[in-house]
Amino acid sequence: MDDLKQDYQQLADHLEEVSHLSGVMGVLHWDQEVIMPSGGGGARAHQLATLSGVIHEKSTDTKVGETIRKLAHAGSPQFSEVEWRNIQEAQRDFERETKVPKSLVQEIAELSSRGHEVWVKARQENSFKDFAPVLSKFIDLKKQYAHHIDPNTPEYEVNLDDFERGATIEQLDPLFEGLKAELIPLIKQIAESDHKPDGSILEGKFPIEKQEALGKQISTDMGFCFDQGRMDVAVHPFCGGGHPTDVRITTRYRDDDFIESLYAVIHETGHGLYEQGRPKEWGNLPVAESLTMGIHESQSLFWERMIAQSKSFARRYQPLFSETFPNPLKRVSADALFRAINISKPSFIRVEADEVTYPLHVILRYEIEKGLFDGSMAVDDLPEIWNGKMKKYLGICPPSDAKGVLQDVHWSSGLFGYFPSYTLGAMYACQFFQALKLQIPNVEELVERGDFATIRAWLRDNIHSKGRLYSTSELVQQVTGQPLSADVFIRYLNEKYSEIYQLN
Amino acid sequence: MDDLKQDYQQLADHLEEVSHLSGVMGVLHWDQEVIMPSGGGGARAHQLATLSGVIHEKSTDTKVGETIRKLAHAGSPQFSEVEWRNIQEAQRDFERETKVPKSLVQEIAELSSRGHEVWVKARQENSFKDFAPVLSKFIDLKKQYAHHIDPNTPEYEVNLDDFERGATIEQLDPLFEGLKAELIPLIKQIAESDHKPDGSILEGKFPIEKQEALGKQISTDMGFCFDQGRMDVAVHPFCGGGHPTDVRITTRYRDDDFIESLYAVIHETGHGLYEQGRPKEWGNLPVAESLTMGIHESQSLFWERMIAQSKSFARRYQPLFSETFPNPLKRVSADALFRAINISKPSFIRVEADEVTYPLHVILRYEIEKGLFDGSMAVDDLPEIWNGKMKKYLGICPPSDAKGVLQDVHWSSGLFGYFPSYTLGAMYACQFFQALKLQIPNVEELVERGDFATIRAWLRDNIHSKGRLYSTSELVQQVTGQPLSADVFIRYLNEKYSEIYQLN
Repeated sequence: MDDLKQDYQQLADHLEEVSHLSGVMGVLHWDQEVIMPSGGGGARAHQLATLSGVIHEKSTDTKVGETIRKLAHAGSPQFSEVEWRNIQEAQRDFERETKVPKSLVQEIAELSSRGHEVWVKARQENSFKDFAPVLSKFIDLKKQYAHHIDPNTPEYEVNLDDFERGATIEQLDPLFEGLKAELIPLIKQIAESDHKPDGSILEGKFPIEKQEALGKQISTDMGFCFDQGRMDVAVHPFCGGGHPTDVRITTRYRDDDFIESLYAVIHETGHGLYEQGRPKEWGNLPVAESLTMGIHESQSLFWERMIAQSKSFARRYQPLFSETFPNPLKRVSADALFRAINISKPSFIRVEADEVTYPLHVILRYEIEKGLFDGSMAVDDLPEIWNGKMKKYLGICPPSDAKGVLQDVHWSSGLFGYFPSYTLGAMYACQFFQALKLQIPNVEELVERGDFATIRAWLRDNIHSKGRLYSTSELVQQVTGQPLSADVFIRYLNEKYSEIYQLN
Repeated sequence: MDDLKQDYQQLADHLEEVSHLSGVMGVLHWDQEVIMPSGGGGARAHQLATLSGVIHEKSTDTKVGETIRKLAHAGSPQFSEVEWRNIQEAQRDFERETKVPKSLVQEIAELSSRGHEVWVKARQENSFKDFAPVLSKFIDLKKQYAHHIDPNTPEYEVNLDDFERGATIEQLDPLFEGLKAELIPLIKQIAESDHKPDGSILEGKFPIEKQEALGKQISTDMGFCFDQGRMDVAVHPFCGGGHPTDVRITTRYRDDDFIESLYAVIHETGHGLYEQGRPKEWGNLPVAESLTMGIHESQSLFWERMIAQSKSFARRYQPLFSETFPNPLKRVSADALFRAINISKPSFIRVEADEVTYPLHVILRYEIEKGLFDGSMAVDDLPEIWNGKMKKYLGICPPSDAKGVLQDVHWSSGLFGYFPSYTLGAMYACQFFQALKLQIPNVEELVERGDFATIRAWLRDNIHSKGRLYSTSELVQQVTGQPLSADVFIRYLNEKYSEIYQLN
């Protein structure tokens, strides 16, 4: 028993070390996007590669593997719940790191960096055929990868599991079919409505310093702790940093639109609150990490959509908006503001899509990825398949592959199975919010008062502080009393947009 | 021979890796001083400790040691000059890393962090006796440290060698005695002069944005490359970063004084130009590193004092200063400006000292460090010794130990032998400048035209691009045609200050 304790401590020390080094990677990545002078890119690539090498070396140390095997063999009754989760997570990571041959890992890494360049050029030149060979090769490599990790599971599902642990094709297919069945007609109804909100009321000039102050104010109101975080500018908004005590959100500014930047701040603050709310008492260990991509996205979308796109939020902040940007906000009522920030309209680009059309962008990609992995679709046919689905799901056809099949960066670095997390996140967020409303019926009143502490505490208690103690499905069941279902999300969208667009 | 080549390549790969990881340390340190939210300190300490551990592990790998031994044994004729320097540097570092027992290294590290806390409190409370035990313990540990590295060299000299490679007591004693003999009377004459420059002409209010723009402008004029560097704010100005392509200088601002901030920018730009000018063609290897602390300081002081405190610089920039800060600079002539930025006056605090009095602050510390190491001085007597020397060298007596023996951070973390580099740097800078003037007689004209390219190219060709190819004494001999001597520096100070203060 003393022996086991010692082994566990050894594993924990190792995991803490890896966590610290991963934190360093986080700081370096943030620095690269936000601060680093342009000429430093070459050296930074070497630094990142060397540090990744160190982490990989430590993570695949055979001694660590033996310790894990011993601990796992001893069985859960020997450990606390938290300890046992650390052992399980360590085992999974060790297996994922060691099962795939080094040569394959290298081949994937090389294709990632080359693939990105090829994609940038192909998109610029609107030439899918230049990118097709990279895509074919990636599918091949990622199938091999999956086979090494688990030869008994469909290859796409193994890749999916890298981003959304526990998600299966069997689970996603009916969820996404359910969404499609309801959203395609809803989108059509919205398009045909005669009661469209007026977005032009938010047009104007918005000085960047004022936008920045407004963003910081609202992030602070939401509870983001600036003693343990920062807010800066980056080309693509993200939430990064090196530790739950050092969380760094970013946004970008346009002087003719303050909504885009502000909602990026709110979105990233949602991610940031999750990070700042992680259970510190469990140390820098796997059980204290955030759960999955989808759950992370649920936290950003919870704040961005459930809270900040609500009527009560518009009522709360219309006065501050109007004080900050009297022209044109003085002429905009809270209700008109609410309607203007909830415009839904089919568009070509996923990252610009609204909450009603976004899921179809994701489902389209999910279906294509599945088809590429199971062989039912060919790479060369993708532009046609893409455009066909766009027409069918959103009623529009991209004018070019650059605005169609070539728009996303993900495939260029082999990230297959990543897209579903976005829509799972949206569905989790909605289901969490309905659960919150059942437990705290006056939540809308709280938002209207700008009192976010209760909401934040609820998220922290129920989600942030749980780290990886439970699986995603266990967590969703615990928090909402039911498994993830498309119904809650569909009902939410139907009700909200029926009102805004006055659909029968 | 093929075997040797392979061994050398292996060593070079190892050294590049260590260099990349050290670059990461550089970025993390910069981030900590400039960017990191205050709450992130705890996690950052763990990250730095873990990374140091990784670097130490790699640097003391016995396999690396064997490779080095093999290569060193093969002898210099087997290698190019550059390769051989890398081998020698690697050998020295490996020996320094492995000769000292781990327990002693740990003891020193622990005392450093505890000592710093004790010092902060002792200085606050003006209580030398609280700091004395730490100091005694440090002297003891650093003597042991020196003994492990080289039992045949005086312990102080081994410590000196950590900062200023090759410097010996035998060399420093006569240099510093020479300075003392000349500077003590010069300082007295200056104090008694009736022709003191008027510093009050530079008093005013200087908006920080304007100071920042001015600093960036002059740094750019000097040739600092902002595509491969940055300028930010830090409590204590420094030059850091992760690589010669990512050099980060910092300054601090006061709105009632623009000179302090601007000259910090110029000083740090001098360091930065050295870093940016390092020989990239030799890779990220020891031979391409900067040479010593003293040579680094020579580069910052070259720009700060030889160039920016010159009459030609005042003539060049008086118009820009006056345009930037019309009040009060419109009323200040170039000559008055030159005189005002060259005020010399004894003061208690080293970091605030001018170029005439600064060396005596250093010599006082050098004499005390030597005395503590050779046993001729006792820790408990230091306040008295300190104040006696201040009186003798500068004619003033500190009103408190906080402004005397307790003022510097260095001893609190065991940095003995560091101080001499500051004055060696000043002497190198002066001697380099005299050599430059011999080779480029119109240098003052160039400065007055704001044409710094020729000067920068000369520094780059003669110093920056040499990396560690030569020892400091070889480099000084090559660049100036003679060894380092106090005479050049003394003559420079005598001439300049005789004119400003109209001494006989």
